[in-house]
Amino acid sequence: MLNKFLCHNHFDYLFMTVPNHLSFLDAFFHSKSVAVFGASTNSQKSGYKIVENLMNHHYLGKIYPINPRGGTILGLPLYKSVLDVEDSIDLAIIFVPNVHVVQIVKDCIQKGVKGAIIEAAGFGEVGIKGKNLRDELRRVTENFAKIRILGPNCTGITAVEEDGVGFFSSFIPMAKTKAGSLAIVSQSGFINGAYYPDFTGRNPQLGLRYVVAIGNKLDINENHLLEYFLYDESVSTIGIYIESFKDVRKFISLTRRAHKNNKDVILLRSGFSPIGAKATTSHTGSLAENSSLIKAVIYQSGCILADDFWELFQICRTISFLKDTNTNSIKLPKAAIITISGAAGAIISDWCHRNELIIPEFDGERYARLKELYPPWMDPNPFALIDYWPAVEHLKSYEKVVISATDIALSSPDIQVVFLTVYYNSKSWVVDWNKLKTLIEKHKKPIFVWIFGDYQDILKAEMIFQKIKIPVFNSEKEIVQTFSKIYKSREFRAKLNSNF
Amino acid sequence: MLNKFLCHNHFDYLFMTVPNHLSFLDAFFHSKSVAVFGASTNSQKSGYKIVENLMNHHYLGKIYPINPRGGTILGLPLYKSVLDVEDSIDLAIIFVPNVHVVQIVKDCIQKGVKGAIIEAAGFGEVGIKGKNLRDELRRVTENFAKIRILGPNCTGITAVEEDGVGFFSSFIPMAKTKAGSLAIVSQSGFINGAYYPDFTGRNPQLGLRYVVAIGNKLDINENHLLEYFLYDESVSTIGIYIESFKDVRKFISLTRRAHKNNKDVILLRSGFSPIGAKATTSHTGSLAENSSLIKAVIYQSGCILADDFWELFQICRTISFLKDTNTNSIKLPKAAIITISGAAGAIISDWCHRNELIIPEFDGERYARLKELYPPWMDPNPFALIDYWPAVEHLKSYEKVVISATDIALSSPDIQVVFLTVYYNSKSWVVDWNKLKTLIEKHKKPIFVWIFGDYQDILKAEMIFQKIKIPVFNSEKEIVQTFSKIYKSREFRAKLNSNF
Repeated sequence: MLNKFLCHNHFDYLFMTVPNHLSFLDAFFHSKSVAVFGASTNSQKSGYKIVENLMNHHYLGKIYPINPRGGTILGLPLYKSVLDVEDSIDLAIIFVPNVHVVQIVKDCIQKGVKGAIIEAAGFGEVGIKGKNLRDELRRVTENFAKIRILGPNCTGITAVEEDGVGFFSSFIPMAKTKAGSLAIVSQSGFINGAYYPDFTGRNPQLGLRYVVAIGNKLDINENHLLEYFLYDESVSTIGIYIESFKDVRKFISLTRRAHKNNKDVILLRSGFSPIGAKATTSHTGSLAENSSLIKAVIYQSGCILADDFWELFQICRTISFLKDTNTNSIKLPKAAIITISGAAGAIISDWCHRNELIIPEFDGERYARLKELYPPWMDPNPFALIDYWPAVEHLKSYEKVVISATDIALSSPDIQVVFLTVYYNSKSWVVDWNKLKTLIEKHKKPIFVWIFGDYQDILKAEMIFQKIKIPVFNSEKEIVQTFSKIYKSREFRAKLNSNF
Repeated sequence: MLNKFLCHNHFDYLFMTVPNHLSFLDAFFHSKSVAVFGASTNSQKSGYKIVENLMNHHYLGKIYPINPRGGTILGLPLYKSVLDVEDSIDLAIIFVPNVHVVQIVKDCIQKGVKGAIIEAAGFGEVGIKGKNLRDELRRVTENFAKIRILGPNCTGITAVEEDGVGFFSSFIPMAKTKAGSLAIVSQSGFINGAYYPDFTGRNPQLGLRYVVAIGNKLDINENHLLEYFLYDESVSTIGIYIESFKDVRKFISLTRRAHKNNKDVILLRSGFSPIGAKATTSHTGSLAENSSLIKAVIYQSGCILADDFWELFQICRTISFLKDTNTNSIKLPKAAIITISGAAGAIISDWCHRNELIIPEFDGERYARLKELYPPWMDPNPFALIDYWPAVEHLKSYEKVVISATDIALSSPDIQVVFLTVYYNSKSWVVDWNKLKTLIEKHKKPIFVWIFGDYQDILKAEMIFQKIKIPVFNSEKEIVQTFSKIYKSREFRAKLNSNF
């Protein structure tokens, strides 16, 4: 299984400065070999799809599928037991009914496997059987001294090494993925599962490094991963979906350390409501505790709170694009609005006001430059709300107006971001959007886009903006709130770092 | 121009019960002939596109393009003056520079034209020239006794008679549109302009009746239109974008009357912020006045407040679909969540809680039916949060589980709506969604969908849901908040109507 995709990160963990107490995670993220328990020769079964995912994504290590029935899968022989494998094995993926898991873990320990991803469910908090199985796992692993466990009840790990190459332990067919610096930790299998093709499909240029589903977190929890990602230089942005904190003080301390490293943490927390908490069946805290707890976490950690899965990925995508385009330095709560519609501009202004963002006035020089775009019968606003329709009518060039106005706005030291509303129609309102990319590189400031027009055309335009890493939003409110949430976290960071 | 598309509504206004003081609007909505001033033979000019829009949408009346230069446009002769037209003319569309407007209005009065849509700008609140032109218009029209004026500075009227047929006065090429019962009033040209292809493209099954841009509302204002739509039986839902109220007491009184008629009013109001207010340049009220005013309007009118243009159309679309599917009777703040992911279910539960929506418990009979879908090792929740993944694994049929669970939930007298999260992948997770339509018809209750999966597949699936008029949302928060806003307005209505 040695292959041409061998790349920098995967086996280079020796050069990482991960401290001893976290080095056990190297077996999960930098394995040289993996055993897949429950691998099936039936292509409809999940145990087949795990092996298929590993092969489709050109996993850099060796794959040993294990199944007592034997046979072959995708050209690989099925071993009847992991003890039959001659090679050493770093990592196990265990996809078998819960009752078989303890024996397999024992075999893994005997074989010297360092880590196991237990995807099987049935170890839950509710019911005596689950408790017995958990107790057994603790006992045979000597409290995880003999082998470390991710899960149970999880979709495991996605670790992208380069575009289309990596380790994929989920049983959901995973799309080809761009490599990047976004890491996700999730207490649900949803992100490494049904939602994966969605956010990667909508954001084909979003670069991922890791997605880790921690399931019931019998052993490894969110804090282990968060801390590891602080040391891992390939990670710059961390999204977390959590149903209950393992150790909230530790979490706050780690997120504060993340600020020191200029890494962003975006948090989605469920279980605010009694039903929501019951649905996750993983904690028993009352509503009041949860609400005040989460407020305290945000207040003390300065991480970004997402409202739902949609927003979690909108924010992660946006920050990733800021980093990719070298526009990640967000210092001022000041925006310019460039719009085809005074009404849309007014709505965006209102949302800026509600989020305490400022629309500054232009200085004399920039105002003079702006005025040149406008007809004699219509002056631009003195403040940074540029309604470009009269200028387009005057100059008869949509592109010239949009590019010039954006250039003028971004050039102002008093403006941090441009909220650009774009009308797109492939027949008559065509712009070479790469010119916006040039402006971003020139001014090192971001542009957030709200696009509308012919629906089929804008689906195509969204993919053009993806390529130049300009974040696109569906609504006026979303464009403003996303920026505002990022700004407020950066404001916290600036204060925190000035106190160090 | 008599044609095969002749349909019920357009000329039938004699049978409408519109009172005398509003009958002047018939000339705008039921014209038998229209003169287009500023019609151009140059296909790149807006004055050409207006005539093109009218012809492309098979306007049911006669079109008389007017231009002193003469010539022909799209097979029609250009008249040098409206006074040269032998036929009588109901309505004028005036798309010429502002300085020519007064003379044209004089000609229209002489000709006996009843209404004029003035699309030209340059009559604004700012500047002496605008004021003079407004004063002149008031004088020559004898305060609009001689002719009624829509605008100036507007994109006029869209009036859809049947699918693809209607009156379209905008200079933006307008997409073919479904006929329906949604009417929009907008103080901005945006909705009849750049945003039109967007919301109609995203919602090809959204039926429109009218979109009216009121511009500077020199004469006709939002209250005239709102009141007219209360009488017009072809209108059932009314969306309003407004920058300043003409007469807020009247507005509140009309929206309360709308409740009596079971017509919904969805309001988007800009100008909450100083910059937003300045951007619209149409009013001078302070921020504090605006914020408290709008709160008072919502409190007293029970209309639905939209956050931005995106949400305005999400809500209008949703209510239109409720009406189209006979599921518009929303009486209980009670929802069932049907989800592939416990995590997504928990997030939706949390948003239900924040919006004071209840997730009830199932009664014994329904719980027993639900339990039959589940494997012996996993019971469903006793409350209406159905995590269907174990059931799909058990029954090996996604369709059977989703359809059965939805049927059970909708059958409960204690459940008003199902929030259904759908994983869609055209290769392996295929469902005949028409079965959901059958359930909606059976139970007369709505289903709101949040869909995710392979992005290209879900774009197709969204269009399938459009066809069966099931509203689809992008996010967990949006699905809950949309229902909650509709419910709260209906709760207001129930109280109001019980007091009559």
